[in-house]
Amino acid sequence: MTALQTERAYEGVGIVQRQYLTWTEPLTLESGQSLGPLTLAYETYGRLNAARSNAILLLHALSGDAHAAGRHSPSDRKSGWWDMMVGPGRPFDTDRYFVICSNVIGGCMGSTGPATRDPRTGRPYGARFPVVTIGDMVRAQARLLDALGIDQLLAVAGGSMGGFQALEWITAHPDRVRGAVLLATAARSGPQTMAWNSIGRRAIMSDPRWRDGDYYGHEPPADGLAVARMIGHVTYLSEPSLEEKFGRRLQHGDGPAFSLEREFAVESYLDYQGDTFNSRFDANSYLYITKAMDYWDLPGQYGSLDAAMARVEGRTLLISFSTDWLYPTAESRAIADALARQGRPVEHVDLPTSAGHDAFLIDAEAQRPIISGFLDEVARGA
Amino acid sequence: MTALQTERAYEGVGIVQRQYLTWTEPLTLESGQSLGPLTLAYETYGRLNAARSNAILLLHALSGDAHAAGRHSPSDRKSGWWDMMVGPGRPFDTDRYFVICSNVIGGCMGSTGPATRDPRTGRPYGARFPVVTIGDMVRAQARLLDALGIDQLLAVAGGSMGGFQALEWITAHPDRVRGAVLLATAARSGPQTMAWNSIGRRAIMSDPRWRDGDYYGHEPPADGLAVARMIGHVTYLSEPSLEEKFGRRLQHGDGPAFSLEREFAVESYLDYQGDTFNSRFDANSYLYITKAMDYWDLPGQYGSLDAAMARVEGRTLLISFSTDWLYPTAESRAIADALARQGRPVEHVDLPTSAGHDAFLIDAEAQRPIISGFLDEVARGA
Repeated sequence: MTALQTERAYEGVGIVQRQYLTWTEPLTLESGQSLGPLTLAYETYGRLNAARSNAILLLHALSGDAHAAGRHSPSDRKSGWWDMMVGPGRPFDTDRYFVICSNVIGGCMGSTGPATRDPRTGRPYGARFPVVTIGDMVRAQARLLDALGIDQLLAVAGGSMGGFQALEWITAHPDRVRGAVLLATAARSGPQTMAWNSIGRRAIMSDPRWRDGDYYGHEPPADGLAVARMIGHVTYLSEPSLEEKFGRRLQHGDGPAFSLEREFAVESYLDYQGDTFNSRFDANSYLYITKAMDYWDLPGQYGSLDAAMARVEGRTLLISFSTDWLYPTAESRAIADALARQGRPVEHVDLPTSAGHDAFLIDAEAQRPIISGFLDEVARGA
Repeated sequence: MTALQTERAYEGVGIVQRQYLTWTEPLTLESGQSLGPLTLAYETYGRLNAARSNAILLLHALSGDAHAAGRHSPSDRKSGWWDMMVGPGRPFDTDRYFVICSNVIGGCMGSTGPATRDPRTGRPYGARFPVVTIGDMVRAQARLLDALGIDQLLAVAGGSMGGFQALEWITAHPDRVRGAVLLATAARSGPQTMAWNSIGRRAIMSDPRWRDGDYYGHEPPADGLAVARMIGHVTYLSEPSLEEKFGRRLQHGDGPAFSLEREFAVESYLDYQGDTFNSRFDANSYLYITKAMDYWDLPGQYGSLDAAMARVEGRTLLISFSTDWLYPTAESRAIADALARQGRPVEHVDLPTSAGHDAFLIDAEAQRPIISGFLDEVARGA
């Protein structure tokens, strides 16, 4: 990499602001319940062109938010969750594209969710928040596009649950999307991922501090959320990456402590991940978002995966990762095969990596040229 | 299967009694601490021959106990955990062999463990129970053999943590074992299995009812233990077996409930497994036994797996299962390869199955002839 590129990479999109839009008109949810007023938190990077044809919507995963790139202030230690991919000269090139990322409904990063004040009671929704689905998340995003005056997106892009939303976009609103980038994702939640999510919910809901969801103003169910996050974290990694990072290394000392306390590095790492997650995430949002993931079932919704993929109008790029056991390569291949059977333009790349599911957030070098090239083709209408 | 075989299979070893032996002489543990008096609960099936040369020691897994076969009373709903393999005409043929199974120390099924009264205080040990290792479990079993007048075993046999103990037997006490049957096991705990165990311990220890281990006489940490067991259970199954058993089937009704409560069959199953586990297992024992598993590291103990396997004097049979992702085929292959490099007689069979790690307790038909043949060879000194 040349010095110039490094410099640009360091700068990225620079300082960004979180924005908010609120609709008083309630959104009718898949459950039949309605949710309103409805607020979406979002960020944008780059500029919408005059033809309004260069917008790309980034879709975040379970614990993500609208802050995909840049920093909110020069003193921020970390930039957004997909900063490596967003900025001048990066795949989501802010010199060419207008990039949008919104926090999902049900979340806890500025969009309406269980911690929001319920207008009927004046108190936070808690567990009275209605159950939302991936479809509901996307319908809320469609409102945001309407408000921004964007009829059609150049592309949607997301990994993991972000890929669920991208798939929902290209099947529920196919005329509004010209291209889709689907990373480390699947067309349905299978019983194993549902099992992990369900155990996480049980850990949260059996933490006595959960108080049936009404813990706002009290101590939150921090142990339950930590356990849920720790379970999730193991599924985001892989056996080889755990061996590389930790092996059987002790955190301190050079012999066993013969104690019940944590002593291996892998334990300290997971405990730390679980505990720090509490400082940035709301346990009720974890319940609602994992529930939305568990409901995710495109083949069930349309009768078959082929019937779902027959709805797609644009181009699709799938990237899977060789050691991802949460949404393994076979899940992407099934989507690619169904699109191909329906005669839809599709490309599937399986990238070798030891990083497991998390690779889509980590392995930037391998993904950059593939995503850049795909977006360029879509932009040129090739 | 003929009618006669079915009849015999039904009868198995019949009604058995749990037996106990107590030593007042303390056992010095790997940690340097001592544990005494020490009680082991055990069961035996078949008869020791005059030459005392037909004894086989069965070694149980994390949640197992001394009750490997038969029933304690005619009204018992279930027979022992390995009943399918133990009895007249079965691989551990009680017409030929004297079969012994003992509960591990640290357990909660009659052997000395954290629920035992600490003679120094008159109260249950709780978290003051000393941390034990796989080596300590095996040293206690060696005392049992001494008491039974058995110098050398025809074989040791066990799956999962039972395989850890079998490996400990053939490396720490090689002159006392002529053959070893190792099922679905590994020579060390890797960081992923340690991660699952550690999260389970965190779930138990953060349940407020755990009370630093002093919950005896109070409500036990049932939610923590349930979560730990649910995590474990997912690791014992496989994605294909979960698809076969549950898929995305709802437990009740034919549409989504749009509720935070469990509603998919896989959730109900896991919740049931977690809750019923509480009726038969002590949370503190779960802490101690998973800790012993985490310490398991034969290559670390002897410098390398080859150095460990160089100690083995008898024959070894390894059986792994194609969909076991907790202790995958590669773990058994590594042991088999190391034994072969050391010129030790070894056989490794990888059985195709969808049952995952649990296959060693379920897939009887495929295992029976392999284990029968191996034991026969060892018995004949072939």
